[in-house]
Amino acid sequence: MIEPKILKGTRDFGPAEMAKRNFVRDTIRKIFESFGYDPIETPVIEYAETILGKYGEEGDKLTYSFKDNGDRSVALRYDQTVPFARYFAANHGVLPLPFKRYEINRVWRADKPQRGRYREFYQCDVDIIGTDSILAELELTKIIYESLKKLGFNGFVIKVNDRRLINSILEGSGIADELRIGVVRIIDKLDKIGIEAVSTEFRQLGLKENQVTQLTKALLNPNDLNNFTEYDTGVLKELFALIKGTELEKFVQFDVSLARGLDYYTGIIFEAIIPDSGLGSVAGGGRYDDLCGSFSKQKFSGVGIALGFDRLVDAMEILGLFKEVQTNSQVLVTVFNPVLCLKSVEIYDQLRAAGINTEIYFNTNDKLAKQFKFADRKGIPFVVVIGPDEAEKGSVQLKDMQSGESFDLNMKNLVEKFK
Amino acid sequence: MIEPKILKGTRDFGPAEMAKRNFVRDTIRKIFESFGYDPIETPVIEYAETILGKYGEEGDKLTYSFKDNGDRSVALRYDQTVPFARYFAANHGVLPLPFKRYEINRVWRADKPQRGRYREFYQCDVDIIGTDSILAELELTKIIYESLKKLGFNGFVIKVNDRRLINSILEGSGIADELRIGVVRIIDKLDKIGIEAVSTEFRQLGLKENQVTQLTKALLNPNDLNNFTEYDTGVLKELFALIKGTELEKFVQFDVSLARGLDYYTGIIFEAIIPDSGLGSVAGGGRYDDLCGSFSKQKFSGVGIALGFDRLVDAMEILGLFKEVQTNSQVLVTVFNPVLCLKSVEIYDQLRAAGINTEIYFNTNDKLAKQFKFADRKGIPFVVVIGPDEAEKGSVQLKDMQSGESFDLNMKNLVEKFK
Repeated sequence: MIEPKILKGTRDFGPAEMAKRNFVRDTIRKIFESFGYDPIETPVIEYAETILGKYGEEGDKLTYSFKDNGDRSVALRYDQTVPFARYFAANHGVLPLPFKRYEINRVWRADKPQRGRYREFYQCDVDIIGTDSILAELELTKIIYESLKKLGFNGFVIKVNDRRLINSILEGSGIADELRIGVVRIIDKLDKIGIEAVSTEFRQLGLKENQVTQLTKALLNPNDLNNFTEYDTGVLKELFALIKGTELEKFVQFDVSLARGLDYYTGIIFEAIIPDSGLGSVAGGGRYDDLCGSFSKQKFSGVGIALGFDRLVDAMEILGLFKEVQTNSQVLVTVFNPVLCLKSVEIYDQLRAAGINTEIYFNTNDKLAKQFKFADRKGIPFVVVIGPDEAEKGSVQLKDMQSGESFDLNMKNLVEKFK
Repeated sequence: MIEPKILKGTRDFGPAEMAKRNFVRDTIRKIFESFGYDPIETPVIEYAETILGKYGEEGDKLTYSFKDNGDRSVALRYDQTVPFARYFAANHGVLPLPFKRYEINRVWRADKPQRGRYREFYQCDVDIIGTDSILAELELTKIIYESLKKLGFNGFVIKVNDRRLINSILEGSGIADELRIGVVRIIDKLDKIGIEAVSTEFRQLGLKENQVTQLTKALLNPNDLNNFTEYDTGVLKELFALIKGTELEKFVQFDVSLARGLDYYTGIIFEAIIPDSGLGSVAGGGRYDDLCGSFSKQKFSGVGIALGFDRLVDAMEILGLFKEVQTNSQVLVTVFNPVLCLKSVEIYDQLRAAGINTEIYFNTNDKLAKQFKFADRKGIPFVVVIGPDEAEKGSVQLKDMQSGESFDLNMKNLVEKFK
């Protein structure tokens, strides 16, 4: 015998979990498409050289890589950005620019599994390549907003900042170039660890006392764009002007301490949090000057965001935003006895033809009570019975499993009942 | 520089291919759900012992297996049936029985890539576990029929046979037990290679001349259930009685030479072909007595089918059944100039709010001609222009890119136009 177990950090999703996950996925997909994004799909297995060396030493360690049967070094997708960069480098000549694409798919990390951290999980990415227009940033802000709204969240904040403002602050404080990425990563922790701990980490990194003072002063500056130079905040102001007066206004906030650790951002950056969920950010992204990196000599500017699929599912669970749905079946057609079975098959065909998800009870010898118990167990909300009386009258009995009510209906009214 | 290439047998899918693939996937998913099937999802990476040893020596060779960072032997999913068996063995105690599930996901084979054979491809599986009812076979026949119909196929055949009938014929011809799987695999080739070649292969396998004569006679028997014993055809007759008089009748055929090579089938078997496509079977399946095999001491009878996703896409391509769709965008809102940009943003918000997939042109300084060219290039069917006149009148100009017609519309009529 083989024990039917799975690897830590991977998950089986049964019908009830899939109902939730598909709701989130379909909602996000619909929003992406409503903005005219088209899907692309890249392979799960790539040449190792495509994936390795793009995420730093840590990323390489966390990449699943191995030799295939032809002794080629291959790797599983670590995220969706690098394969997209590879795809875009190979295809930009035939794509309409700016190119807008989305992807909702799995990625893999050979990570130590822990609460909320998986080896196999989903990402939802949208990117716009080949334009500098601020309308691109506006659109991504709208996408984050509409996604969170449509999923049912009300209390959320979309923080916005500009990497150029951060760079200017670092420059003003005289931070050496080689320390900047380190400083940005520390700034990113401000929300979690507070200003005292951030100052300590600045010192540990080797910053001088006057630099620490200047930086913390800038970070604690009220989040008002007017406190900073026009030169550093011009693009942010353009974005906020486009948001002003719209429903987004009260959800989008300038935050000078938002840094987004990744090195490749060069312009506006975003991050969304849902404070009540107690989780970290549920979406993030920003503008980058050079998507394709080592895949192409040409530089392409773009801006992209990723929604954290599994974290959104977790946040909805925590805040009780899911309707409990166990099954896609809207109605179970019971079978009164083997003789009346054909009558039941007829009704089940007609209900499906009317667009109602319908199942038929298979074991035609089982008592009705057992058939009802099955519907109850599976969470099917309605049950249809066609006994000898109904067959003669040409009607059916419909039972609402929640209220317990029964209705005697002809076929036309039965279909109406579901509309 | 790194060459942006992918492994042979894997594929990138751009927007135009994804539009087709998503149409097929969404159509099939909707049909599966209309019959009350619920999705489950299992990991891509499993313990190697879960996957290996289930598909014979050949299957083991074609499985992607490797050591992960923790030195565990792991493997990529080879199909969806074995992971489902593993899932079901671990969870059947908490699942409502009979359990109906579907899965539409990728699987991997370390195969030699060739036309129509990929290393990474999709399968669409439905299975019903825990019932012997013939209504289960009826349902799967309906699912194949409705899927092919909905995808637009008209000329197709769903062949049906019973493994018990084949076994009885083999027994009647005195074929030794150890030769049966070999004989079944040869019978499977009848369609492709003809009766002469089949006879030759029978001889090569070691069958005696009288056995070859008896077998070929049975295989060439007109496909009429009445030519065989009631005992061997009872279940088939039940199935055909349920199909009689329905629209399925002329698509479903008894075929005594249908064998389905896989060892685990024990009852009714199915296979669908689309003769005009020139491709092999596009769907297949059957009943098995013991789904869980080495994962469970308990035996579970079930019946399942798989639709060949990539082959269906290929067949639709060959028969010209796809509408050419390059993008999800229904309309492009142009930007007349940077001053009128806010007006365009307003229209783009309103169109999306009305459920119309809408994109806005990003580079607000580009000439209208360039913006129209972009819509044309991307295949967006409608373009909206808001110039100074329109802005003043509170209207928009809508251009139908196909017909070239223009309309002067207010917002209400614009939305109506798309409904």
